Amino acid sequence: MLRHFNRFSTLVKYLFKCVFLPTNWYLTFRHCLFTRKSGWVNVCEKSANKNRVDKAVKENCSHIPFIAQLNILLISYKMSVNGLLKLRSSNVVKSFFRTYKASGIPELTQVRHNVKRGNYANLEGKDVAFFESIVGKNHMVQEDLQGYNVDFLRSVRGDSQLVLRPSSTQEVSAILKYCNERKLAVCPQGGNTGLVGGSVPVCDEIVISLARLDKILHIDEITGIAACEAGCILENLDLKARELGLVVPLDLGAKSSCHIGGNVSTNAGGLRVLRYGNLHGIVLGVEAVLASGEILDLMSDFKKDNTGYHLKHLFIGSEGTLGVVTKVSMLCAPQPQAQHVAFLGVPSFDDVLKTFRHSRQFLGEILSSCEMIDAASLDASVNHFKLNSPIEGYPFYMLIETSGSNAEHDMEKFNRFLENGMEKGHIIDGTITAEVGKMQEIWKLRELVPVALVEDGFCFKYDISLPLREFYHIVDVMKERVGGLATRVCGYGHLGDSNLHLNICCPEFTQEIYKCIEPFVYEYTAQVKGSISAEHGIGFLKKNYLKYSKSPAAIAKMREMKQLLDPNGILNPYKVLN
Amino acid sequence: MLRHFNRFSTLVKYLFKCVFLPTNWYLTFRHCLFTRKSGWVNVCEKSANKNRVDKAVKENCSHIPFIAQLNILLISYKMSVNGLLKLRSSNVVKSFFRTYKASGIPELTQVRHNVKRGNYANLEGKDVAFFESIVGKNHMVQEDLQGYNVDFLRSVRGDSQLVLRPSSTQEVSAILKYCNERKLAVCPQGGNTGLVGGSVPVCDEIVISLARLDKILHIDEITGIAACEAGCILENLDLKARELGLVVPLDLGAKSSCHIGGNVSTNAGGLRVLRYGNLHGIVLGVEAVLASGEILDLMSDFKKDNTGYHLKHLFIGSEGTLGVVTKVSMLCAPQPQAQHVAFLGVPSFDDVLKTFRHSRQFLGEILSSCEMIDAASLDASVNHFKLNSPIEGYPFYMLIETSGSNAEHDMEKFNRFLENGMEKGHIIDGTITAEVGKMQEIWKLRELVPVALVEDGFCFKYDISLPLREFYHIVDVMKERVGGLATRVCGYGHLGDSNLHLNICCPEFTQEIYKCIEPFVYEYTAQVKGSISAEHGIGFLKKNYLKYSKSPAAIAKMREMKQLLDPNGILNPYKVLN
Repeated sequence: MLRHFNRFSTLVKYLFKCVFLPTNWYLTFRHCLFTRKSGWVNVCEKSANKNRVDKAVKENCSHIPFIAQLNILLISYKMSVNGLLKLRSSNVVKSFFRTYKASGIPELTQVRHNVKRGNYANLEGKDVAFFESIVGKNHMVQEDLQGYNVDFLRSVRGDSQLVLRPSSTQEVSAILKYCNERKLAVCPQGGNTGLVGGSVPVCDEIVISLARLDKILHIDEITGIAACEAGCILENLDLKARELGLVVPLDLGAKSSCHIGGNVSTNAGGLRVLRYGNLHGIVLGVEAVLASGEILDLMSDFKKDNTGYHLKHLFIGSEGTLGVVTKVSMLCAPQPQAQHVAFLGVPSFDDVLKTFRHSRQFLGEILSSCEMIDAASLDASVNHFKLNSPIEGYPFYMLIETSGSNAEHDMEKFNRFLENGMEKGHIIDGTITAEVGKMQEIWKLRELVPVALVEDGFCFKYDISLPLREFYHIVDVMKERVGGLATRVCGYGHLGDSNLHLNICCPEFTQEIYKCIEPFVYEYTAQVKGSISAEHGIGFLKKNYLKYSKSPAAIAKMREMKQLLDPNGILNPYKVLN
Repeated sequence: MLRHFNRFSTLVKYLFKCVFLPTNWYLTFRHCLFTRKSGWVNVCEKSANKNRVDKAVKENCSHIPFIAQLNILLISYKMSVNGLLKLRSSNVVKSFFRTYKASGIPELTQVRHNVKRGNYANLEGKDVAFFESIVGKNHMVQEDLQGYNVDFLRSVRGDSQLVLRPSSTQEVSAILKYCNERKLAVCPQGGNTGLVGGSVPVCDEIVISLARLDKILHIDEITGIAACEAGCILENLDLKARELGLVVPLDLGAKSSCHIGGNVSTNAGGLRVLRYGNLHGIVLGVEAVLASGEILDLMSDFKKDNTGYHLKHLFIGSEGTLGVVTKVSMLCAPQPQAQHVAFLGVPSFDDVLKTFRHSRQFLGEILSSCEMIDAASLDASVNHFKLNSPIEGYPFYMLIETSGSNAEHDMEKFNRFLENGMEKGHIIDGTITAEVGKMQEIWKLRELVPVALVEDGFCFKYDISLPLREFYHIVDVMKERVGGLATRVCGYGHLGDSNLHLNICCPEFTQEIYKCIEPFVYEYTAQVKGSISAEHGIGFLKKNYLKYSKSPAAIAKMREMKQLLDPNGILNPYKVLN
């Protein structure tokens, strides 16, 4: 993957040199790379020509047609990716394109969302001096903080004036103890790949970047138990695990830049939940620093531990508002020896559900992914990216992947599953492959859907969990509701995890369609007891909608928990709770 | 299983009639059966001859040699068990024998452990009248409370004067609200199968039995998501799931009487953690009633839900001290279509570890159990129960089980694994089978070890988790430490979960050996960062040792959590925390 990264970055560097890329791409790359120990980061950071490049790309970006740029990126992507890594990299591409579509540097969050600054102290010279005594001058950033203030999607922008980059739990502890006493608000930050504005400041919170806590502490090749610091990049841990015949069960598009600590803090979902379950099952221990600076050591190296309250779960998914995760231990799985991917045409949503059920029955222990794509979604990726779908003309498509330890066995199981589905008429047509190249082509059809949909103009995107019996109904409901206001209403997603990506496309954002969709879409989700955020969290952007998925009693209890663990409210304020 | 139960109970009824059984067996049976809707319970409960029977068995039990009774039970057990159910039923037998070995009704816990009663109100007539208005006269027990006051192992005895058997969350809520206002202490009780004195009162707490909240709410055959009330018996949910081609991932010896709510409250481990992970990953939602009577609805029907703090985990494993679990939703797995069991002779513990690692590599997704038994442990079960071990003369034995969806594929994988192990010399000899009868025989060798060890006289038992590199070392350390004081020091357990059962046998309990073992065994476990309770919890009996597995900061935080959720400390007092 390092090879992949280097080639990729070389190409991007070339693109920059050719002044092909708009500033926001440049910034995104800088941001992405900032968390890595890459020479290239320094090229960006230290380049004397930085301002000139910035200026030049600003002036020139409009000359390059979007699709041409897309092709360049796709070529670079194709060049650089080996084997199965290709599959997930399309997510990276997708993210860049979302970035491209954003309109430059976003307005300050405090202004756009009319946020009243909390009653926190203002940063003073004495504070900076104290922090310098803790982390050292070289690990404080006081200029050019864009990469820390702006999120990956460029949807929010904070106004922090100080980034601290501690290198140990003790340093994090000293910083928090001081901030708590001084009532200085802080924003803990991992890889800053979150999608709900949770990882950047809202006002002027001090950013505590965990990037330097990046050590892999140990991986036990027998038990599969791994421990690392919070700033360890997910992919780095995974690569190390693979050397020992293991895999990290968590897999995300942002794998190459997201931090384990951030994954844990946001309870990241991703592509393998169907197979390996969620982080509450996978994470065996955490070390967290509380607002008071107290270090809570809840690390452990075993799967069975029934000694008292299982407090670590408070830090899994609380988005840095209850404590700063500094270490994590988790259970890795044995590395699969074989993979297969099928792409199937299915005549109705009822058949989609039946096919999913049969996939669990026939593929049982080897099933690793079960995705659903409706015709309108597939149409978007096929047409926008001129892709060839192996099958066409069905209302629903399914992408089913297996990961096992014996290719021959897996193929036999897969064949039986397909024969059964086709005999019973649940599956009309399809293709199955174990060839890496073909698997990648199939995954592209699915992975490029979200990117393609943005090309329709403006796209309202919802990431929701729904009971499977209601899974697709919401698409029809919304179709009828928005009528001619939308150019496309479609749904796709991780069927195996009951996680739907509902998308409503229109030529441009209008208040009329916005009000037609929200809060109805959340009310509807709440009505069927769904979750308004399946895997992205609440962060800053969804906190007004929390009430649709949590009862008043649960929200009140969350507030009490926050009050207990962070009485001054200094940890990641303005997030999760109103 | 109903058939099994009926035949079994019929035989037991017969035994009772013949006055073969001692009172404590009778009580254990009554207790076990009490939670079932069985006519036979009523026979016991209502029998006019109850006192006569009690008296008679008391007088006669000593005439029946232990081994004869054992054989009778084993015959009944053999007669009554079908298919794989046999495998776990040996646990039931085991429990009865532990019971048999206990010396009658234990001393009151308050006396034996010198417990100072908390500052709670005393139960008055007006309280009883209030409770009657909530649950009705027929669902209050005020006489003959032994089955609720004494634990399964007969190691502790409370002195409750009132058992309430509510039938709904609302009734539980009304009871707790009243108790909280009146400062009446309560002890929530599920199937009362816990092993650390957590499920019975310590003093005179009111018992809230969840037995009538036994409804299965729904099971989705497509997603595998099941929801039930807390008093639902684990086996009942599993049987219902199996009708739909699913299995409940949790499997325990006490399956036929333990409650789902109790499983969740104690974060029960069991036989399938290696395959399906722990309850924090499996449980998707809970409904809990807080001390205040407030109902916290954290139920959900999906795997991905990232909306705010994941509070449900506070109730998983907190042993009823933070709230009373009233509903649970969990993810069931597809039912395996094939099972295989191997019993292997291994020359050293290093080879045991290598074999475990290879089992993960070669058996990957089908591995469902990996148990280790040392020679001294096997010797106990073989000699006490006159069992035939298929192999003999090795220092270590391993029992490896697979569960998959294709018998042929699984067998092929198993053969490759065995060939590799034998080629490399990690495995010297062994047997593998897919025949139900033979699998049962092999499982018996492992399952009867704990029962057999009790026959040595007195047995100190420790259920600990240890890093695998330290897994067996503690047995040697203890062997050296206790020297001639012990007749046997041995270890066996769920190697795949790093869960060791360390046993130290001696002719009888003496202070000398007790002081030689404790607290050293806990100190040692703490030193290697193990857990002093792998799967049984802390309850009443281990609360003094909590400090060996939790830091002072973590314990302080647990206290704050308890104070927040149960400020009057009415929920299951004297447990978990000192």
